[in-house]
Amino acid sequence: MLRIGLLGCGRIGHVHALSIAVLDGVCLTAVADAFPDAAQRLADRNGAAVLSADAVIASPEVDAVIIATPTDTHYDLIHAAARAGKAIFCEKPVDMSADRIRDCVAVVTAEGVPFLTAFNRRFDPNFAALQARIQAGEIGRVELVTIMSRDPSPPPISYIARSGGIFRDMMIHDFDMARFLLGEDPVQVFAVGSALVDPEIGAAGDVDTAAVTLTTSSGAICQITNSRRAVYGYDQRVEVHGAKGMFRAGNVLENTVELATGAGFCAAPAKHFFLERYEAAYRAEIAHFVEAVTRNLPASPGIQDGLAAQLLADAATLSLSTGRPVAL
Amino acid sequence: MLRIGLLGCGRIGHVHALSIAVLDGVCLTAVADAFPDAAQRLADRNGAAVLSADAVIASPEVDAVIIATPTDTHYDLIHAAARAGKAIFCEKPVDMSADRIRDCVAVVTAEGVPFLTAFNRRFDPNFAALQARIQAGEIGRVELVTIMSRDPSPPPISYIARSGGIFRDMMIHDFDMARFLLGEDPVQVFAVGSALVDPEIGAAGDVDTAAVTLTTSSGAICQITNSRRAVYGYDQRVEVHGAKGMFRAGNVLENTVELATGAGFCAAPAKHFFLERYEAAYRAEIAHFVEAVTRNLPASPGIQDGLAAQLLADAATLSLSTGRPVAL
Amino acid sequence: MLRIGLLGCGRIGHVHALSIAVLDGVCLTAVADAFPDAAQRLADRNGAAVLSADAVIASPEVDAVIIATPTDTHYDLIHAAARAGKAIFCEKPVDMSADRIRDCVAVVTAEGVPFLTAFNRRFDPNFAALQARIQAGEIGRVELVTIMSRDPSPPPISYIARSGGIFRDMMIHDFDMARFLLGEDPVQVFAVGSALVDPEIGAAGDVDTAAVTLTTSSGAICQITNSRRAVYGYDQRVEVHGAKGMFRAGNVLENTVELATGAGFCAAPAKHFFLERYEAAYRAEIAHFVEAVTRNLPASPGIQDGLAAQLLADAATLSLSTGRPVAL
Amino acid sequence: MLRIGLLGCGRIGHVHALSIAVLDGVCLTAVADAFPDAAQRLADRNGAAVLSADAVIASPEVDAVIIATPTDTHYDLIHAAARAGKAIFCEKPVDMSADRIRDCVAVVTAEGVPFLTAFNRRFDPNFAALQARIQAGEIGRVELVTIMSRDPSPPPISYIARSGGIFRDMMIHDFDMARFLLGEDPVQVFAVGSALVDPEIGAAGDVDTAAVTLTTSSGAICQITNSRRAVYGYDQRVEVHGAKGMFRAGNVLENTVELATGAGFCAAPAKHFFLERYEAAYRAEIAHFVEAVTRNLPASPGIQDGLAAQLLADAATLSLSTGRPVAL
Repeated sequence: MLRIGLLGCGRIGHVHALSIAVLDGVCLTAVADAFPDAAQRLADRNGAAVLSADAVIASPEVDAVIIATPTDTHYDLIHAAARAGKAIFCEKPVDMSADRIRDCVAVVTAEGVPFLTAFNRRFDPNFAALQARIQAGEIGRVELVTIMSRDPSPPPISYIARSGGIFRDMMIHDFDMARFLLGEDPVQVFAVGSALVDPEIGAAGDVDTAAVTLTTSSGAICQITNSRRAVYGYDQRVEVHGAKGMFRAGNVLENTVELATGAGFCAAPAKHFFLERYEAAYRAEIAHFVEAVTRNLPASPGIQDGLAAQLLADAATLSLSTGRPVAL
Repeated sequence: MLRIGLLGCGRIGHVHALSIAVLDGVCLTAVADAFPDAAQRLADRNGAAVLSADAVIASPEVDAVIIATPTDTHYDLIHAAARAGKAIFCEKPVDMSADRIRDCVAVVTAEGVPFLTAFNRRFDPNFAALQARIQAGEIGRVELVTIMSRDPSPPPISYIARSGGIFRDMMIHDFDMARFLLGEDPVQVFAVGSALVDPEIGAAGDVDTAAVTLTTSSGAICQITNSRRAVYGYDQRVEVHGAKGMFRAGNVLENTVELATGAGFCAAPAKHFFLERYEAAYRAEIAHFVEAVTRNLPASPGIQDGLAAQLLADAATLSLSTGRPVAL
Repeated sequence: MLRIGLLGCGRIGHVHALSIAVLDGVCLTAVADAFPDAAQRLADRNGAAVLSADAVIASPEVDAVIIATPTDTHYDLIHAAARAGKAIFCEKPVDMSADRIRDCVAVVTAEGVPFLTAFNRRFDPNFAALQARIQAGEIGRVELVTIMSRDPSPPPISYIARSGGIFRDMMIHDFDMARFLLGEDPVQVFAVGSALVDPEIGAAGDVDTAAVTLTTSSGAICQITNSRRAVYGYDQRVEVHGAKGMFRAGNVLENTVELATGAGFCAAPAKHFFLERYEAAYRAEIAHFVEAVTRNLPASPGIQDGLAAQLLADAATLSLSTGRPVAL
Repeated sequence: MLRIGLLGCGRIGHVHALSIAVLDGVCLTAVADAFPDAAQRLADRNGAAVLSADAVIASPEVDAVIIATPTDTHYDLIHAAARAGKAIFCEKPVDMSADRIRDCVAVVTAEGVPFLTAFNRRFDPNFAALQARIQAGEIGRVELVTIMSRDPSPPPISYIARSGGIFRDMMIHDFDMARFLLGEDPVQVFAVGSALVDPEIGAAGDVDTAAVTLTTSSGAICQITNSRRAVYGYDQRVEVHGAKGMFRAGNVLENTVELATGAGFCAAPAKHFFLERYEAAYRAEIAHFVEAVTRNLPASPGIQDGLAAQLLADAATLSLSTGRPVAL
């Protein structure tokens, strides 16, 4: 039985607590949150103790911690948990600064604790199955990857201003997905972008519509597009063209109902809410973490993957500002 | 070069003339129609002579005739053409009376002329490919066949009244398709029906919504539904469930455009107009006829297939009126 | 907080226990099973007491019972629970005998306890959304309903022999779905069937491939097909043709991955396992039951729906044996 | 009746002759080809005269010419036909040199003759319907365009060597499509590419896998990918993301047949042969040309569109060789 301490009892912390509740071989023993009520509600439901974050990390009743707190707290919690010898499940991004992530890599490596960077999309059953079949050689060498990722609607301008920009906040998921599907690291990034959805986003110094081209040393090419607004739902698609075939994973729709009228055959929109769209992924990432820690196997994506995605986001940000491709 | 005489220069005759125009190894040499203007227009376009129907049949410049005249004239034209030794392409139905079709079978058999009953749907590239793959054994033994066939909108009541009823006028295509896909003849027919689309159709003694269950001696089952109204286009689908797999052929849509909005993902409606939906089929049935006659191969479906479909339509009509299954 | 007592801790009981674990406003307080180990495992996980079935029903700590025991025990448990004033969630079928179901209706009605017949498919988010949109009038009057329901593979012959036959064991779900979608009760049933999948099923007096036609007093028609074997997964589809449009709900596939090769564009097979295919439905039916009992609203489908489906199954069985349509 | 002279009786010339044969208001009066047999075969079929190219252009029996000869002959034929006052339908590319196209623009403009650059894909019913609906405002402002265009297999290396490179030979169609869908001209081109399909293509100085990013002055972005090899057929897809919705036009498959087995649900591959894939487009472009000339309306795309696409191809070629984005 792996005993989990949950740091952060907000929306995503709640999702992880439910995943633990229906999974064998794991239990939630302690929770912490800056808002005691949020912690108490989760504790009541799961029979866990409410403690301070430090106490959770120090507790002998805790084997592993889930870090689901605001990004700027990750750095300290990772250091403390690693030094306490706890296995670490950390929400993305690890940190907003690549240098600080390098510090985290150092402490995690030094202490030898298991670490999972929670890029949830790798655990989506659709994308996971697709990637496994690439790995199995079904389409041969990967040549062209296309990733389309569009949010239903933009976040508040106040959020945009402190988000680090679209490449670090939103496309970072796609950079990780690109590495996952390409099976190698990009060596060049070229980015373009515009503020088309909302001019205030442009005024805040960011773009809301962006396209990136990645190239690898083997010659594979990856195109990514992001938009902060897709009226038809949370648009999440990948496509991989290989020497022997092409894989696609399309959108997950709200349901399978199709209406035929004079206007045509109309299927449901894509699921709008990311927690619902990736519900199975959130469950699977906890299951993977529990299995990796319990069976002493490497957790993946690891902390190096968190760093690699951040470096791509930094390079894209630079490319957009300079108008030039950036080498990595 | 196979020389064709066209009897009937209406809408379907025009379609056949265009098919001949783009096909190698065949030409249109003579045309006939009760309306001389219609005949003349086709003749001008194709460089053919305008003659009477009798003269077309008698002409030494004609190797084969296409009978595209009103159904009640088929009987005499088939007899005349068979006796003149012409190959015959005859629009469906061969006749409204099974007994009169039997007479036609007799004369065609006695004279030994090639004969094609123009059940165009067998030549649809989709249904033809599906059936060929059943024949090739891809899904093993056929167990369940489902045929859905729905018109965009009902014909005028005046047409309904003299149509012979929905089973002889509309479902006859599906009876032929059922035989084509089952690969054997039904031994029992059970029919139900209602006048739901238009009460005047009920007042005219017919139904506009009908469902039939066919069973064969091997135990295979076929379900057919017809409606005289489908607001989403000309609905033409088949599905065949076998021991080793299942084949489907869905609707042919107006185009491949899909619109995604908050209402969902909307594809185009099904093609509405039967001449457009079955455009490729009309071309293919002429090509098959020309090839069969030219290379001295059997044309299929033959006149016996025209009779078999009519017998199923008669049995369904009887089943609807008695409320009982009818054995064949 | 609604306190649930679970009778039967087998596969489906386990599913319900997990649904309760992630749902607010409900908890599992007591469990019972003929195999104490099975009960103990569930109790440990959920913090519930292990009791005898009688003690669960009698317990003041139990507001409602879930009956997930073998069908032949339902009758007594329903009587006991109703007399104890407990709300009842009962797996389908209520009983194999329509007369005995009538007894259950009587006691449930007399005691005035809430009762849900667990026809899980009504709670599938796809079928539920489709039916709600019919109710909302989106396609106008319902004219033709088509239900295709095919299992991945047949159960053991030993199960077939005591199953009550395909109509009572398998198609009963589709009879309930037909009533749900038609919005009215059928007045005539016609059934055909064959043993095509396995001749031993025929030797056991049953069929494995069956087709039924239902008609209602308004003239609506419903066609249902069942097969005990679909190599492509658990095939569960419905289609409803109405005056103003047509609704379909297709299969739920294992994932969204599509592979394009020279063989074509290949999507995943349908989910094979019914517990996985209807995972969301199982959660939703518990949620509906909890909400109905808690808020004092009628649970649906109720015990009368359980009886109605059984009567249709009995009529289909009679139709198959007599070769005639059966009036209800 | 518009009288057409056909220059070039090869594969594409043959396609145009068939289009003319089934179209009202137009006839083929004269044909020319460097190979007299090819010209004679077409002439026989269509009742046209075989002449030299010069004589076709000079003929008073010819109102318009179709230039379907090798690209290096276009320049002289355009000049001659324009000076003879003939309407001109010219296969793409107009010429391999932008400067020489500018000369052609000059003579066509000076003589005031109608001119159609035969970018056939604009006439595909799918892409045409999609673009018309963008124009009608259905998805609001265009923000992101994605064009995927992949050939079934690469041409011979000998062809590659004299093709002008992938951007001028293959992606030129997509550059025209990008302009068609964007509704404005790109101001920057960035291209990457690799020789992944066949190293000999790389040895010949070209790439076989390429990706381009276009940006416009309004901030719209277009991504294009090309591959010289797609094992699943001739892959031709476009997608347009706008403020109010998203349009897609997927591949045209060989047929509608779908096979369901344990491997999943498999649809047919995309049509492989470009003449078959774009059959309807070839017919529609002739029809548009005939209507434009006959009714004295502008033909579109015109010769300026031929020039604009060539300039984009030149810029992409430069971007690939320099590794930098190129401004237009």
